[in-house]
Amino acid sequence: MKPEHLLRPIGHVRSTLTSREHAPRQGNEGAPDAWLEIDDDVAEGLRGIDLDQELIVLTWLHEARRDVLRTHPRNDPSLPLSGVFATRSPDRPNPVGLHRVRVHDVRFGRLHVSPLEAIDGTPIIDIKPVLSIDDG
Amino acid sequence: MKPEHLLRPIGHVRSTLTSREHAPRQGNEGAPDAWLEIDDDVAEGLRGIDLDQELIVLTWLHEARRDVLRTHPRNDPSLPLSGVFATRSPDRPNPVGLHRVRVHDVRFGRLHVSPLEAIDGTPIIDIKPVLSIDDG
Repeated sequence: MKPEHLLRPIGHVRSTLTSREHAPRQGNEGAPDAWLEIDDDVAEGLRGIDLDQELIVLTWLHEARRDVLRTHPRNDPSLPLSGVFATRSPDRPNPVGLHRVRVHDVRFGRLHVSPLEAIDGTPIIDIKPVLSIDDG
Repeated sequence: MKPEHLLRPIGHVRSTLTSREHAPRQGNEGAPDAWLEIDDDVAEGLRGIDLDQELIVLTWLHEARRDVLRTHPRNDPSLPLSGVFATRSPDRPNPVGLHRVRVHDVRFGRLHVSPLEAIDGTPIIDIKPVLSIDDG
């Protein structure tokens, strides 16, 4: 193990979504709002995040499979198998989730955001500002 | 250490950029083209990626500092200190780089893309398709 490649969760998602089966595939497919609860020792990293701002939230999809390299897009068996890097499947060698959200409330160590399709308890690994309309 | 939070690099960036000092801050600020070299044992995960497609590439910015929580945006000391999660600074608890690129060439286990501001040797941790114009 290379300790320099070890992720350190900075907090967790608090959501009414509690199981992967009920989660929408993408945030714009009916995902609810959620709280991002950030750990006390890194909470000062949130300073400067504003109400109504758009953010990119990176999560660690801890229930995903890491040994899958090909999948049916959208879990639809009628679609041909595709490499996981050509899809947004959570199953992939490093199951990092990428979510574009808007900020609705800012408190110390907590952000209220939507939409977020990650389930309750999902580790958060990073938060970044959106830089432009077509920002990745 | 929690082994389930250990990243497994899927490949590395091959670029003419060789030092962080010379790298532009964002891909759209004069970053060059680069090759994404994907490891043989996960290369089939690229199947379905097309020429001219736009991708999100996630990297592990291995030269970043992980103990920084506040920074001057754009490394400009005249700007007030901001929390790292409100900036795109590479220095942050989990130094994941987020890059939106276009595919110029596809070969087995290799993608030629631009623009990419990550330096030569940067570990790649994930590749995802862009889903829409305002995709995160």
